[in-house]
Amino acid sequence: MSDRIEIRLSGSGGQGMVLGAIILAEAAAIFEGKNATQSQSYGPEARGGSSKSDVVLSDGAIEYPKATKLDILLAMTQESCDKYCCDLRPGGLLIVDEDYVTNLPETDGRIVKLPIMRLAAESVGKKVVANIVALGALVELTGVVSEESLRKAVLAKVPKGTEELNTRALRVGIKAAQNVKQ
Amino acid sequence: MSDRIEIRLSGSGGQGMVLGAIILAEAAAIFEGKNATQSQSYGPEARGGSSKSDVVLSDGAIEYPKATKLDILLAMTQESCDKYCCDLRPGGLLIVDEDYVTNLPETDGRIVKLPIMRLAAESVGKKVVANIVALGALVELTGVVSEESLRKAVLAKVPKGTEELNTRALRVGIKAAQNVKQ
Repeated sequence: MSDRIEIRLSGSGGQGMVLGAIILAEAAAIFEGKNATQSQSYGPEARGGSSKSDVVLSDGAIEYPKATKLDILLAMTQESCDKYCCDLRPGGLLIVDEDYVTNLPETDGRIVKLPIMRLAAESVGKKVVANIVALGALVELTGVVSEESLRKAVLAKVPKGTEELNTRALRVGIKAAQNVKQ
Repeated sequence: MSDRIEIRLSGSGGQGMVLGAIILAEAAAIFEGKNATQSQSYGPEARGGSSKSDVVLSDGAIEYPKATKLDILLAMTQESCDKYCCDLRPGGLLIVDEDYVTNLPETDGRIVKLPIMRLAAESVGKKVVANIVALGALVELTGVVSEESLRKAVLAKVPKGTEELNTRALRVGIKAAQNVKQ
């Protein structure tokens, strides 16, 4: 089996999906010695306000950087879920924000529903960290990188003065994922 | 001739090359209706502290998102110049920070030398905006996007409260490039 893992973070513009993907790629590459590519394609949909960002992780060289068969898809909005769920590989994991994605696709893989934006707003206190809540949950559910590597990558990337807020966002995401795993 | 334009921003980690590339891609895609991809690959060199980020722009669909023959290379450090100058296409444009890249490659293309970090530190007052100074210069030299689109993309992406600083950085970069064009 190939060790290549393809992950897509999708939502609306301004939800920090690109930054989230960069953090995940850097957690794997800088703190775990893996190879990673991180990319986004902007077409007409970029003007419509939707946003997606891909990460490919591998222990070996990554010949083709574009995600083609997603192992993991995060969809923060119904529009992004509808658009990208067909790119999930059979048996892939779909993580959705349950308050915004109510119409779930038919899939033979696993779907995890979490109130990501609500957790960011209510449990952390800032909607803007929803991307970090989502990363915490994704990593807890999948183990694509360790929580320690993720934490280091988050702290290396977020603006000075927001470290505590972002650490709290990570913890809230991890905790929420632990609850659905049980 | 294809309308595909490949651009690489390279330097050391922390110089904001990834953010610079995202801003350039969004200037083209969101404010000019072009297609754009923006990507970075992290391999062993990511641990060494060097950083590169690619942008591919096109009026049509972008089949292969990875940059292969660069039209434009920005090199903020000697290491990044040495590593990537061989990826420039014949006749491509190399922009270097003249204080850090002193050993220039043989090339049949154009080389533009600018004191980018020094301009950021002395003319703008903050080294951290060197990436924005560089973008201003690159766009003035090449016209890959309009200055107005670049300005909008910068302001949409930088932290609140830093708009004036970044606008000044853009102006300093544009001015520096105008001086070498004459």
